[in-house]
Amino acid sequence: MKPLSECSVAVIGLGLMGASLCIDLKKRNLCREVRGVTRNFSTILRAFHEDAVDLATTDLNSGVAGADVVILSTPVRAVVKMLETLSPILWPGTVVMDMGSTKAEICAAMDRLPPGIQPIGGHPMTGKETAGYASAEGGLYEGAPWVLTPLPRTSKETIELASELAEAIGAFPITLEPVRHDRLVAAISHLPFLLASALVHTVSDSGEEDAAVWELAAGGFRDTSRVAASDTQMFLDILVTNREAVLEQLDTLGGHLQELRTLLADNDEDSLRSKLSCSQNTRAEWQQKKGSFATPAGGRNGPPPVNAQ
Amino acid sequence: MKPLSECSVAVIGLGLMGASLCIDLKKRNLCREVRGVTRNFSTILRAFHEDAVDLATTDLNSGVAGADVVILSTPVRAVVKMLETLSPILWPGTVVMDMGSTKAEICAAMDRLPPGIQPIGGHPMTGKETAGYASAEGGLYEGAPWVLTPLPRTSKETIELASELAEAIGAFPITLEPVRHDRLVAAISHLPFLLASALVHTVSDSGEEDAAVWELAAGGFRDTSRVAASDTQMFLDILVTNREAVLEQLDTLGGHLQELRTLLADNDEDSLRSKLSCSQNTRAEWQQKKGSFATPAGGRNGPPPVNAQ
Repeated sequence: MKPLSECSVAVIGLGLMGASLCIDLKKRNLCREVRGVTRNFSTILRAFHEDAVDLATTDLNSGVAGADVVILSTPVRAVVKMLETLSPILWPGTVVMDMGSTKAEICAAMDRLPPGIQPIGGHPMTGKETAGYASAEGGLYEGAPWVLTPLPRTSKETIELASELAEAIGAFPITLEPVRHDRLVAAISHLPFLLASALVHTVSDSGEEDAAVWELAAGGFRDTSRVAASDTQMFLDILVTNREAVLEQLDTLGGHLQELRTLLADNDEDSLRSKLSCSQNTRAEWQQKKGSFATPAGGRNGPPPVNAQ
Repeated sequence: MKPLSECSVAVIGLGLMGASLCIDLKKRNLCREVRGVTRNFSTILRAFHEDAVDLATTDLNSGVAGADVVILSTPVRAVVKMLETLSPILWPGTVVMDMGSTKAEICAAMDRLPPGIQPIGGHPMTGKETAGYASAEGGLYEGAPWVLTPLPRTSKETIELASELAEAIGAFPITLEPVRHDRLVAAISHLPFLLASALVHTVSDSGEEDAAVWELAAGGFRDTSRVAASDTQMFLDILVTNREAVLEQLDTLGGHLQELRTLLADNDEDSLRSKLSCSQNTRAEWQQKKGSFATPAGGRNGPPPVNAQ
């Protein structure tokens, strides 16, 4: 298999994640050629103008023809559909990666690709609440965990190439099984999103009675609700393709919230202090551990994780 | 009444909020004298060494003797107790302010001060999740809403002096009734704290089964859980002195979470999309409105609020 530097890499979907990847690959000269495939013609012009790609097209066939690595960067269910579309037009030997936020359904679809194709699932754990090409930026992946979910058919060389790509843009590859990945991100990513949405709805209800609530809202609300501004379609795909794990996390959280409510309603200060103190310590320790690693680009994403296998 | 520039200001409690206030008052030469009162002797040394105060003491009597303005900066219930302690030792004409996060109990206690004293409640809406003198910094109040809750007995001149002080350090005074303040902050501050605590407990439960969850935790978890690292005693006081309003917000939030859960479990995608899209838009609009105001010091706190009365 070619080293990354000799590969033509085609990124399908030039939103936040895909375009940021193109920018890094191109500006750092990490591969032979960077191609972007998007449905949006104005994005093509912009990507060219900003030198984010060598070649951009709305035509899928010409975008992937001859590419050594094809990276799908669309919402999860669009990845699943795109894999079906790509199936007959990919060259044997092509490495197919993706950047979707849930992995079980995508990896199952990857396994339906023709035998000559080398698929590997992936999920860079970074992003921001704004979506689209306009939000893309170089360095987005610096310091981020990048989960790789190889299939049984995925070769060692493909895993190495995917790891090389992740590391080349400053991310830290972690290899996990798809189902394990999905269970873990239900807790630390999908649950926070639902919480943030519920919080915004609750504050909106307050705002109906007294609009001053929006003027007082400061750092606590800002941070706790930030991910609620994330792209709805992206998260809808995530939730629907990770339903059981998300429901389980919601129920666990509901239990903790109910416990906090009961302690407060019963004025059981000792138990309330103990429960709050426990989460304070846990959160502070996590932050400290995270902060104790140096990150290459100012620490957007925290520590390089150790391999979780 | 003297202008701020001629006042001796005594700050009781040199934690994050009190010490940050001292630093601003002192470094910007906003008043005649800045005094700090703290129980911790090493904090006195540090405050002197760093030129955060003109005078620091562990002795409450000498700390407040002759001060024109006394500002209480401790957890809420400590403020209530301190008001009782101060009652017999304050000079007539002294302005008594506080920086506590709930206002109804504090303002009720303020109203029990001798008639010659001029009390006014206050709550600067800023902070961070780290507590204590070591976390203090100049400029903490830049761009922050500073809620003022005058009592019926509070004179116009006292309200003006408190507003002058808030504005002098870059904050934006908003006048509110204590009960209204408490209801509003239950939604945008106390509820996010409980959510963050419940989230940390939920992720901890996941971590018991699979410790890799802590390695994957990235920006979404970091921001949604940030306030869980706040000082437990401070938040315990807040919750206990604002119990009814917090319970009400918890119940409203519980309803929204349950609705999200049901829509996901039932695979009702259209309704789920609609509910998520609604919170996405609301959150994005709030951010945009917030961001459209220029803030003096890089925007830690967002826009100057208009007066909410």
